[in-house]
Amino acid sequence: MEKIIFDTDPGIDDAMAILFAQACSNIDLIGITTGFGNANIATATRNALFLKKQFKLAADVARGAAEPLVIPVDEPADFVHGDNGLGNIDIDESNLPSVAPLAAPDYIIEKLKESPGEITLVAVGRMTNLALALRKCPEIKSLVKQVVIMGGAFGHNGKTGNVTPFAEANIIGDPHAADEVLRADWPVTVVGLDVTTKTIMSNAYLHGLQKTSPKYGKFIYDITRFYANFHQQTDQVDGIYVHDSSAIMYVSAPHLFTTVEGPIRVITEGPAIGHTMQKTQTKRYPVDAWSDYPSQKVCCDVDVENYLRIYQQELAN
Amino acid sequence: MEKIIFDTDPGIDDAMAILFAQACSNIDLIGITTGFGNANIATATRNALFLKKQFKLAADVARGAAEPLVIPVDEPADFVHGDNGLGNIDIDESNLPSVAPLAAPDYIIEKLKESPGEITLVAVGRMTNLALALRKCPEIKSLVKQVVIMGGAFGHNGKTGNVTPFAEANIIGDPHAADEVLRADWPVTVVGLDVTTKTIMSNAYLHGLQKTSPKYGKFIYDITRFYANFHQQTDQVDGIYVHDSSAIMYVSAPHLFTTVEGPIRVITEGPAIGHTMQKTQTKRYPVDAWSDYPSQKVCCDVDVENYLRIYQQELAN
Repeated sequence: MEKIIFDTDPGIDDAMAILFAQACSNIDLIGITTGFGNANIATATRNALFLKKQFKLAADVARGAAEPLVIPVDEPADFVHGDNGLGNIDIDESNLPSVAPLAAPDYIIEKLKESPGEITLVAVGRMTNLALALRKCPEIKSLVKQVVIMGGAFGHNGKTGNVTPFAEANIIGDPHAADEVLRADWPVTVVGLDVTTKTIMSNAYLHGLQKTSPKYGKFIYDITRFYANFHQQTDQVDGIYVHDSSAIMYVSAPHLFTTVEGPIRVITEGPAIGHTMQKTQTKRYPVDAWSDYPSQKVCCDVDVENYLRIYQQELAN
Repeated sequence: MEKIIFDTDPGIDDAMAILFAQACSNIDLIGITTGFGNANIATATRNALFLKKQFKLAADVARGAAEPLVIPVDEPADFVHGDNGLGNIDIDESNLPSVAPLAAPDYIIEKLKESPGEITLVAVGRMTNLALALRKCPEIKSLVKQVVIMGGAFGHNGKTGNVTPFAEANIIGDPHAADEVLRADWPVTVVGLDVTTKTIMSNAYLHGLQKTSPKYGKFIYDITRFYANFHQQTDQVDGIYVHDSSAIMYVSAPHLFTTVEGPIRVITEGPAIGHTMQKTQTKRYPVDAWSDYPSQKVCCDVDVENYLRIYQQELAN
């Protein structure tokens, strides 16, 4: 079993990923830490607690940072995820469970210290909580099993950004945090737009989940209606890109992904703010702001057919 | 005939390009404007005057800027081009002709005003002179026939930089000038590392030029010995990449090149300073520092076989 702490800003595809993690036969979802992005921190945390209640998740929910390290906080992406962050479905706010007593960065530090080498951090929103945890307790770099990030775009699939031509939302939302997390000396794998926009769940596939997954199918179908409409409008996609679940899939079934290795930097100012750049050449250049940092993995391709099969199968459990 | 003003920092491959322009049957080299980079401004200007004398060039030589617009001037690349900028061959400094009375930016402005729509600006060094001319006389945007730039790297051939992992020398040498020139509303084509590092003249080819080009072959072979040694050491290349001549070749034989279109920006700070980024998608993004600028052409591929054949043939004239 892969123990994970899931750092997330639910968010429609975040909710799908939480349920996928919960359902996944080889994943143990021990904690959810919340962030801002798809919704503000209050809404994202409320949504995580709602999912905990609704689907009887054992995972703790720890509230995280409300704003980026350096740049000002942006408006939540309500045009993608709806005003309530979950595609404007009805949310029953009665009897919500409580958040964990620790703030997200402290929760991460405590859990990693409790189980050295056992926990994978999976982060699918702004990386602010992870950067704050790293700043507060640099030792966690050697306590984590691995770090899996949904974010960025490296052009492998022709995709280089979604908010700007060269920046993906999770990175541009807190580029300084992303740069700190991605160049830290811990083992990171990035699952970015290169593979998540290649992985499309059609509306027919999502409709079909209602039958194959009695536990989660209807909820996933309902929350993705608003999201699918956004994809139709923006990218003429029939269905949805599978962003956040892809980070869970990488933990559960890494063999589905092809990766390239090299140090990563994030642009933190100027027209390309939020752009992620991986140096894949091994030679050292005359001037080189990459070579001093550890090599990380970036997913450049994915076996979509088996991905969709496994996702459906795991949710049926 | 294509009238050109050639902005250059000779420089070994700059000298090769000057001689190629001089020899080229459909190019009329009317002026040479000098810059810093491969050598400092004094050495680069001296070398241009030396070439004018040695090869009886009719072209004027106008002295240009000595330093970048914003960042400090860097040391000249003497490890690539030799202490004297021409591979440490003997340079006879007696009886050098004089420089033109106008400084490079003013020379460019005057010539473009004299022959509206007729002159192509070809720039193969830092773009400081072109940026200064644009600042001083924005009307030149509508007076130039086209602008052809050797610089940058867009990853089409796997190459993304030579000074840093993501920056090419001409761009990182004055990134602010490059950003101004590349996003100005005049027709630009960029010939970058994507095609210039694909175009290799082997040492055997260069040796052969001595026979096929009685006028220029020995000189080109002599100056490229130092340069070829640098290529051997740095990139294990037997011979040389053909950087600056490729900009001349684009003017003379554009059919050899494949291009992609889209606005270009240059990163002017941070780890990726000097990186060139072209937006090739036509859609406008929520935040988009590209869409307000004109579409330019970037060369992504080149017919190397015919390139080398034409180069040899033209130099034989």
